[in-house]
Amino acid sequence: MSKSFGRLIGVSLGPGDPGLITRRGWEALNSDAHWTYPVKKAGEVSYALDIALRAGLALPADSVALVFPMTTKAELLARAWLQAADETVRLLAEGRDVLFLVEGDASTYSTFGHLARAVHELQPDVEVEVIAGVSSYCASAARIGRPLAEADETLAVFPAAYGVELIDRTLDEFDSLVLLKVKPMLEGVLDLLEARGIAAHAVYVEKVGTPDERVVPDVLSLRGATIPYLSLMLVKNPGRAKRPTQRGCRSKAVAGAEAA
Amino acid sequence: MSKSFGRLIGVSLGPGDPGLITRRGWEALNSDAHWTYPVKKAGEVSYALDIALRAGLALPADSVALVFPMTTKAELLARAWLQAADETVRLLAEGRDVLFLVEGDASTYSTFGHLARAVHELQPDVEVEVIAGVSSYCASAARIGRPLAEADETLAVFPAAYGVELIDRTLDEFDSLVLLKVKPMLEGVLDLLEARGIAAHAVYVEKVGTPDERVVPDVLSLRGATIPYLSLMLVKNPGRAKRPTQRGCRSKAVAGAEAA
Repeated sequence: MSKSFGRLIGVSLGPGDPGLITRRGWEALNSDAHWTYPVKKAGEVSYALDIALRAGLALPADSVALVFPMTTKAELLARAWLQAADETVRLLAEGRDVLFLVEGDASTYSTFGHLARAVHELQPDVEVEVIAGVSSYCASAARIGRPLAEADETLAVFPAAYGVELIDRTLDEFDSLVLLKVKPMLEGVLDLLEARGIAAHAVYVEKVGTPDERVVPDVLSLRGATIPYLSLMLVKNPGRAKRPTQRGCRSKAVAGAEAA
Repeated sequence: MSKSFGRLIGVSLGPGDPGLITRRGWEALNSDAHWTYPVKKAGEVSYALDIALRAGLALPADSVALVFPMTTKAELLARAWLQAADETVRLLAEGRDVLFLVEGDASTYSTFGHLARAVHELQPDVEVEVIAGVSSYCASAARIGRPLAEADETLAVFPAAYGVELIDRTLDEFDSLVLLKVKPMLEGVLDLLEARGIAAHAVYVEKVGTPDERVVPDVLSLRGATIPYLSLMLVKNPGRAKRPTQRGCRSKAVAGAEAA
């Protein structure tokens, strides 16, 4: 007799403003599915859950916090993942769908992919669904009223911890940079933006759409400041020497403008 | 006596699935604001409007199509933009808010930024708001159940027309690529993916979330095919030689794993 598992659903809630929850996400939250949500420590506040609560939803009595410690110790991490996956499979075995609430978009630098893989290793039959959401950088661009990328521009997104050297090289090829988790590299990033003369084209955004949101257009004023983990910088690179595109709108548009 | 203008609101509707409209977007659509939406030709179907209609909303009788021709002729484009901005300002002058419906996210390769600038040039007093949305590539990643980027990975997003050479260079630095508007460069992109041995890690997605959605995991089967404008390719680059991060999770995690 085969056991009938519920579906595991990664529900993207957007980066913080409950208004950015999608209609499908909202429907899932209001279904009879089990809620699970990530916390760093047992008993701690969950950033993702907080979005749902600020939307006016009540925490279901049987919702379950899954602990994902902020550690780099491989052994501790592996144990936490296994425990979270184990707990999730136990809930799925009840036959109800299980939601995993995530801030931002569940496919973009989220723990959901990892959880889904861990669950699949334990129970390959579990069906997984992802409800896409608004990413923090799309919401930040909307918040400051400045497009992320237009027409033929290039956009790069990565954690700033990748290093100032990569950011520097990327600025040769990309018109728009999103530096996530800028915290550990802040001073180096500011040095680079200043050296390249583009600090005025960068904006710092923290916890967009939440009551703690902070937008700092003068990024150099952040020197020496302590910033939180959920922070990003949108960087525009307007002076970049662009190569013409090989085919497509841009080269034609340039040709058109020259002919006009 | 100063005239009181309505606000110009860029409403992101997500890439096609009406379930991916945000709650704030939904609220705007159901307000008494004027609807405007882009079409390529007078009388043509609007991709953005179609999402709202498929959500079950009725087209308000006073909604207005704004024509943005698919041309690269600078003069024609400039005239179309001016006409659209002019029409929008006329509506805003009635005092009601004006929505401009956009597919995907209004800050990501959208015409909204351009319209907002053109309106501002005519009427600097107009207040502009952007309601962020789900981008086509986040929805595509959710649809195929594969994260766009995880942990310390790097993500690049750009129109494929930028050229195979840039895609090639980008694959040296980036773990995940989103190639938008892949149509004009399809053969060259397929050649490159094959030469790099990563074609199996690419997925082609067209009109995600619409009734015409098409997902092609075997991208090489697209050789010689004619594909539409609203198509993208998600490319993973799993074999890339990574440099350790300077600070942050990755280098520590590597050290932790080595110590364990």
